[in-house]
Amino acid sequence: MKTAKQYVDSLTKLKMNLYLLGEKIDDWVNHPIIRPSINAVAMTYKLAGEAENRTLAATISNLNGQTVNRFNALFMSTEDLVNKIKMQRVLGQRTACCFQRCVGLDAINAVYSTTFEIDQKHGTQYHDRFKKWLSFIQDNDFCVAGAMTDVKGHRGLAPSEQKDPDMFVHIVERTRDGIIIRGAKASQTGSANSHWQLLMPTQRMREADKDYAVSCAVPTDAKGVTLIYGRQSCDTRKLEAGDIDVGNLNFGGQETLTVYDNVFVPWENVFMCGEYDFSIMLVERFAAYHRQSYGGCKPGISDVLIGATAAMADYNGTRKASHIREKLGEMIHLTETIYAGGLACSYEGWQTPAGNYQVDVLLANICKHNVTRFPYELCRLAEDITGGILVTMPSEKDLKDPVVGPYVNKYLKGVPEVPTEDRFRMLTLIHAMTFGLSGPSYRTESMHGAGSPQAQKIMIERETDMEAKQKLARKIAGIEAREDPLS
Amino acid sequence: MKTAKQYVDSLTKLKMNLYLLGEKIDDWVNHPIIRPSINAVAMTYKLAGEAENRTLAATISNLNGQTVNRFNALFMSTEDLVNKIKMQRVLGQRTACCFQRCVGLDAINAVYSTTFEIDQKHGTQYHDRFKKWLSFIQDNDFCVAGAMTDVKGHRGLAPSEQKDPDMFVHIVERTRDGIIIRGAKASQTGSANSHWQLLMPTQRMREADKDYAVSCAVPTDAKGVTLIYGRQSCDTRKLEAGDIDVGNLNFGGQETLTVYDNVFVPWENVFMCGEYDFSIMLVERFAAYHRQSYGGCKPGISDVLIGATAAMADYNGTRKASHIREKLGEMIHLTETIYAGGLACSYEGWQTPAGNYQVDVLLANICKHNVTRFPYELCRLAEDITGGILVTMPSEKDLKDPVVGPYVNKYLKGVPEVPTEDRFRMLTLIHAMTFGLSGPSYRTESMHGAGSPQAQKIMIERETDMEAKQKLARKIAGIEAREDPLS
Amino acid sequence: MKTAKQYVDSLTKLKMNLYLLGEKIDDWVNHPIIRPSINAVAMTYKLAGEAENRTLAATISNLNGQTVNRFNALFMSTEDLVNKIKMQRVLGQRTACCFQRCVGLDAINAVYSTTFEIDQKHGTQYHDRFKKWLSFIQDNDFCVAGAMTDVKGHRGLAPSEQKDPDMFVHIVERTRDGIIIRGAKASQTGSANSHWQLLMPTQRMREADKDYAVSCAVPTDAKGVTLIYGRQSCDTRKLEAGDIDVGNLNFGGQETLTVYDNVFVPWENVFMCGEYDFSIMLVERFAAYHRQSYGGCKPGISDVLIGATAAMADYNGTRKASHIREKLGEMIHLTETIYAGGLACSYEGWQTPAGNYQVDVLLANICKHNVTRFPYELCRLAEDITGGILVTMPSEKDLKDPVVGPYVNKYLKGVPEVPTEDRFRMLTLIHAMTFGLSGPSYRTESMHGAGSPQAQKIMIERETDMEAKQKLARKIAGIEAREDPLS
Amino acid sequence: MKTAKQYVDSLTKLKMNLYLLGEKIDDWVNHPIIRPSINAVAMTYKLAGEAENRTLAATISNLNGQTVNRFNALFMSTEDLVNKIKMQRVLGQRTACCFQRCVGLDAINAVYSTTFEIDQKHGTQYHDRFKKWLSFIQDNDFCVAGAMTDVKGHRGLAPSEQKDPDMFVHIVERTRDGIIIRGAKASQTGSANSHWQLLMPTQRMREADKDYAVSCAVPTDAKGVTLIYGRQSCDTRKLEAGDIDVGNLNFGGQETLTVYDNVFVPWENVFMCGEYDFSIMLVERFAAYHRQSYGGCKPGISDVLIGATAAMADYNGTRKASHIREKLGEMIHLTETIYAGGLACSYEGWQTPAGNYQVDVLLANICKHNVTRFPYELCRLAEDITGGILVTMPSEKDLKDPVVGPYVNKYLKGVPEVPTEDRFRMLTLIHAMTFGLSGPSYRTESMHGAGSPQAQKIMIERETDMEAKQKLARKIAGIEAREDPLS
Repeated sequence: MKTAKQYVDSLTKLKMNLYLLGEKIDDWVNHPIIRPSINAVAMTYKLAGEAENRTLAATISNLNGQTVNRFNALFMSTEDLVNKIKMQRVLGQRTACCFQRCVGLDAINAVYSTTFEIDQKHGTQYHDRFKKWLSFIQDNDFCVAGAMTDVKGHRGLAPSEQKDPDMFVHIVERTRDGIIIRGAKASQTGSANSHWQLLMPTQRMREADKDYAVSCAVPTDAKGVTLIYGRQSCDTRKLEAGDIDVGNLNFGGQETLTVYDNVFVPWENVFMCGEYDFSIMLVERFAAYHRQSYGGCKPGISDVLIGATAAMADYNGTRKASHIREKLGEMIHLTETIYAGGLACSYEGWQTPAGNYQVDVLLANICKHNVTRFPYELCRLAEDITGGILVTMPSEKDLKDPVVGPYVNKYLKGVPEVPTEDRFRMLTLIHAMTFGLSGPSYRTESMHGAGSPQAQKIMIERETDMEAKQKLARKIAGIEAREDPLS
Repeated sequence: MKTAKQYVDSLTKLKMNLYLLGEKIDDWVNHPIIRPSINAVAMTYKLAGEAENRTLAATISNLNGQTVNRFNALFMSTEDLVNKIKMQRVLGQRTACCFQRCVGLDAINAVYSTTFEIDQKHGTQYHDRFKKWLSFIQDNDFCVAGAMTDVKGHRGLAPSEQKDPDMFVHIVERTRDGIIIRGAKASQTGSANSHWQLLMPTQRMREADKDYAVSCAVPTDAKGVTLIYGRQSCDTRKLEAGDIDVGNLNFGGQETLTVYDNVFVPWENVFMCGEYDFSIMLVERFAAYHRQSYGGCKPGISDVLIGATAAMADYNGTRKASHIREKLGEMIHLTETIYAGGLACSYEGWQTPAGNYQVDVLLANICKHNVTRFPYELCRLAEDITGGILVTMPSEKDLKDPVVGPYVNKYLKGVPEVPTEDRFRMLTLIHAMTFGLSGPSYRTESMHGAGSPQAQKIMIERETDMEAKQKLARKIAGIEAREDPLS
Repeated sequence: MKTAKQYVDSLTKLKMNLYLLGEKIDDWVNHPIIRPSINAVAMTYKLAGEAENRTLAATISNLNGQTVNRFNALFMSTEDLVNKIKMQRVLGQRTACCFQRCVGLDAINAVYSTTFEIDQKHGTQYHDRFKKWLSFIQDNDFCVAGAMTDVKGHRGLAPSEQKDPDMFVHIVERTRDGIIIRGAKASQTGSANSHWQLLMPTQRMREADKDYAVSCAVPTDAKGVTLIYGRQSCDTRKLEAGDIDVGNLNFGGQETLTVYDNVFVPWENVFMCGEYDFSIMLVERFAAYHRQSYGGCKPGISDVLIGATAAMADYNGTRKASHIREKLGEMIHLTETIYAGGLACSYEGWQTPAGNYQVDVLLANICKHNVTRFPYELCRLAEDITGGILVTMPSEKDLKDPVVGPYVNKYLKGVPEVPTEDRFRMLTLIHAMTFGLSGPSYRTESMHGAGSPQAQKIMIERETDMEAKQKLARKIAGIEAREDPLS
Repeated sequence: MKTAKQYVDSLTKLKMNLYLLGEKIDDWVNHPIIRPSINAVAMTYKLAGEAENRTLAATISNLNGQTVNRFNALFMSTEDLVNKIKMQRVLGQRTACCFQRCVGLDAINAVYSTTFEIDQKHGTQYHDRFKKWLSFIQDNDFCVAGAMTDVKGHRGLAPSEQKDPDMFVHIVERTRDGIIIRGAKASQTGSANSHWQLLMPTQRMREADKDYAVSCAVPTDAKGVTLIYGRQSCDTRKLEAGDIDVGNLNFGGQETLTVYDNVFVPWENVFMCGEYDFSIMLVERFAAYHRQSYGGCKPGISDVLIGATAAMADYNGTRKASHIREKLGEMIHLTETIYAGGLACSYEGWQTPAGNYQVDVLLANICKHNVTRFPYELCRLAEDITGGILVTMPSEKDLKDPVVGPYVNKYLKGVPEVPTEDRFRMLTLIHAMTFGLSGPSYRTESMHGAGSPQAQKIMIERETDMEAKQKLARKIAGIEAREDPLS
């Protein structure tokens, strides 16, 4: 397995076609806006090398018998699923942001089981191909980005009905050696920090959408791939001098618009090619894993927010007020409710025909659906406890300024024993998590990542046997014969 | 193990001193207001005899190697804890009410582990005594009621500070053969349906409260014990002719005010006698188990409510309306969020020094705390979907009346293909669950059973290592040295 | 104007065809199940005679220049609308239940303005007819029930599409002297306590539904009218001895299924007869008034619940606990939020072409929509503060029993200075409001009365000029020319 | 009255001692980070000059009989209070941000009535002084900032108990000509855009805090005053080329830390000087007005957010989906619930002894308390409907870039008929309102402005006559004599 440093070094060898703020960035690995996101991924490598976290972050591969990073491994038991959740919580606690690799992990497992079932039905060879590719990934300890979310154009129309046929990634040509694809994936988490991308279709397909039913692996620096970096709230604070206003200096998320402009993919890296009847299975398997993921990472990030908020209460001298304690308790309650969902769907996992484990689909959707609600309330409570100064405080430059610095230091002190700078640091961290660099990830990604709330509602309906529940009611009500307890 | 019928027969042999609506009831087993609650307990016997539910409802005792009812067994693994939850869900689905035995089960496990630790510290012999008593219970397949909730008088005062010293059960005399206790326990679930009661203190005790730190087992028909039956909403509907208005004909809950007026308890049945320093451990162990319990039973009851509500939407012709589907989906979401909490705290259980397993305390409190909120919202949604006729419908007697019956039949029909009587039955079931016989148990018991919301808030605070969370925040904020991801 | 006693006496002269629990009730005015609902209406007469409430409860009629009960008056100013709300709050506070007359008041005002506009378009004479009828009502100080809610059969089908044509009240024959109607209205509030009923259609009608577009006035004891009394939760407690368990001894609500079996209505009492294009106007005018109403009555009832809950906290000795105060504050907050909605839509009223005043429709819907949510949370908080004894307490008969009464008295005491009986009384009052006699009215009627939540959502959408809001956004965003603040 | 342009010109004549990002800014009026906040204030001048808004935005002064800007006027009727709310909604709609002048308006009215009552008790001359000063302000159409929020140090300690005596503004010296004050006010809205500041104490004072009980008027550019500009989320986007990423180009809020370092105030501008017993009256009067204010401005801002969100649904092709319509309806519902609170407390205002009108205090607190909750939910719903692209979209520079611009244009199009740039503009507007330049004002200011949630809870408790509510309950329950409806 690579060390964190080896991982970062390996990125420098990629010939990435990456744009940020209207400019092509060559030394993107060291760009101050981008680097924190690389650091966050690097933590997934670091963790695998830590003795105390090895159980969580590494495992023996069922493919090659070697110890591999869990982010590249198949779930071979419910214990593996649980360890994933617990690893994610630790990573959330130590980065306070999205560490980006779950999409790849979840994609790997979904493609693994789906290709097995495609082959069973269609007599194709995708599963073996995929296993070979995955072994290669494991051997090199590469970072893999899962790529699902198409740009989608008019959300009410199928891929083949769009005015512009490129609104979903699709096969434009099949050659003897491979396929050529075109399209774009939006909101791509950690894409620039990954050596490979594993593409999947984004929704159910019908026969007319056959060319859109495509799954394949592509090197991130392949010819035809362009990454356009997403703006983040307060992104340019990372370009400023100082280390306070940025809030979370070392870590951050990353999303790109990834364009595939006639990218060639050799057959050995193609895992679905027109089997539109399996598009929805792949989507749903991935989605279930990824909805589980939020049950691990978000509680970890919430832990930091709760700790920061409690610290602010200490700094303000309000920590023992009953309404503050009540609100901190509520923050913990919401956080652990999410976590309980992550654990429950993991423990209740089941084995797919291919042999790896899938989470309980209903419970994973329940878990994620709470994630579309609770982080907003967590932010609200954090803002309540922190106080209005959160959004009106002067800058680090003012704090350090020889003229006004003494004013700022004197007047923005809370309890006497805590230095004003510490209070500033805690305030900027909370600001980063509620408004700034990490806020969008903590809130909006919680809303839409792994599917918007309505997507979970649909799955919750589909996974529920309502007739069975109605039958229970009919028996209690005496519409069907009531149960005799003594029979 | 007893059959359900043997269980009911065995109750008739008890010389219960039971009052209901101001009268002493001798043939209480066949009293129409009481019998449904006995039936609900009988289901716990029936389930243990069903091949398809035996794994859930019975287990091998570690004490005597025999197959025993799970409600009398110790949790010897996290699997046992999970099976408890799943058994409770099945029982909730089949009774749509409180089946009353969880208090005893949870008390047994809490006393088991606490007595072990009392003995370790104080050199007492409680644990062996308790094992003997429990073996006797298992051998006879008795039903045991846990008895914790004292009447408490002025809630702001300790037991020894109350004006009336009997506001908490206490030892009034220690004799050579045993102790004499006095006091009363309120809101006692299933007490009259149990052969034995296992008493526990209700809160933390200090030295002055020494005589209140008492745990012991008492036969429900012991001399000095009086049971005064609690009124239930719509209880007298069970006395009416007909089987519709009652909603849930066969099953129901039961609570009594249980008075102990100088009851003698031989030493062999005394399991704590003055060790006030262990009072809170016993309370918290029991509370954690019992907060877990709600993660099983309430989802089962909710399943019935959801099924009934969906049926009403069918009967009204509104089932496919998007807002109806959205609300049904929300009902499922809330139900499964509770269940996820029940599963998570069970899977994450841990072994006590005595050898049995305890649930994860933080997660059990999270589970229960959601239970203090969600059933109310489930009722609200059920009432929304059902329609106002829920609370304005005429009686079963009107429906069957030769004069107005035809009017009621004609005009209270929903979709043509469903008989009006079926619609009546479903309406009365929902009424029973939201207002009538089961409503208080589904709502208020969810609020206060196993501890009121504030009790969970206190435990959530206590079980959280806030300093650890603050440390995470300080490291991200740079107040402590920030983590180097490449180190 | 009549006194309360004269009102009750006048009822005895009606030849009501009323059924309750499968029996025809002749002396229904003195029936213990029915009488509390008559008392509640009587309070609307009593209030008009009280000096300190005369401004709220009586007004000068614009029709005859006499002082009339506000419940029979037209709103001739926004002040009248505000006084209605304030009167309702007082009545809610003094009855703790539905006092039933708002439906009639709101119907009178809606029919008044709609008939004016029908006449303008269709050249009919409904408005004058209606004024004559209303003068007659005012002269006699009669009580009028508004009758809107048809039984509706399959909710997805229009009146004319139903398998049974009687699922909505309709004209079966037009004669020289009048019309003959058939059908039934469900969930009819206060119908038996009213001398007259004012019928209105229940929804938008199309040409095919022409015969269903009918509004007319009918004496409650007219030939062909049958009232079938709705069951209430715990209704038979009113038949028991004692005055505690019933909770609210003197007051209660009333709903019936009212059947119109070929009822003849002379032309002078017909106010809409086939003008299907005005059906929705009448419905929406009525609905807006009635959604306003909930902004007055429910806060009044909530005042009683809040007071009772605070009393329980006093009796339990928990009143000063910070979490109790927080929850009581939340109860007040929710109550006053409802009230603010009632006030706002009243103050922002507007004059109809007929001259009377209509509430602001959007704000009235907002008001009512909060009512579909907040009483449930108020009940939840009341149950939280009250404690589990709310649903497990023994009966009044036990409390008074010579044998177990002393036990109950001793052990169910809270703080020493409050008699146990007082605590019992407060508990049963809260029980009545959350589960028992008044609970369905406080909760389910809040949900469905004046239209279910979805009906408000539809009106909120319709009353919103979304294009105007979008234009605001386009100008700020620079899609349209941005505003120059200095221009 | 000044035109908007005259207002801006007048600011350039002030010798402001203003710091931003660690630098003294001389031409602050034209500084791109500051100017949008000046523009927002300028709109309050512009509106007063618009024929269609004159009723709302201007009024006749009771002091000098001239037409003055409403922001400098006294509320002489409840109609004035209502017009304030309606004016604020218009301004919110046209600026989509905080327009900053309400603090001054509310301070003027609070000081006016409080000085009258101080004089009555203490025989002082504050009220006349204040009227003179206010006439002068009206004559010159100056902008006034209210200054209340002290920096407060340890929140658990009184002003006189703080380790640093300057944690609250206080009198350091009384001279023949006036007083010298020292301290700092935090989170000062619009301070730099105001010609004058009207200082008030921030909380209840006791005798030991006498020197902290001070109210006075100070020119913003007085000697000793330093303004340190607060950072805003994404503030430096205003320094970038382009007009898209900034979201709301022309308008924004402003807060400063304002330091008073031995500032001299002549007696004629001193309105409270040691009368600590009136500190809380002034605070509560101001707070009630300001809690009302949120009932006007936030609904106006919400209108823009709702419009923008609906536009995004149009652009995405999802507008007709039932769940989208449901959520938009909820956004309107929450917005109008706030507005109803603003209207209700205004219409229910009352006249103070000084003659001006005060809002209903309980209802104003209810209004504001909803504001501490609903904008968060509005943001959550906006993010839900908008989609994840909200926080991952590339920059305006990428959109306009010759190389990647075509990709961005092609792939981030929604429905074909809407230009991608329009979609970008709407996305950045929503981003500005949820995360960026206006988000903190829309959320955190809604939380803490005019007092944090707990401050409202305290006022709600204080303004409630709980004994009266308990009496209602006792009468219904029969603890006191029940009311005879026929008496």
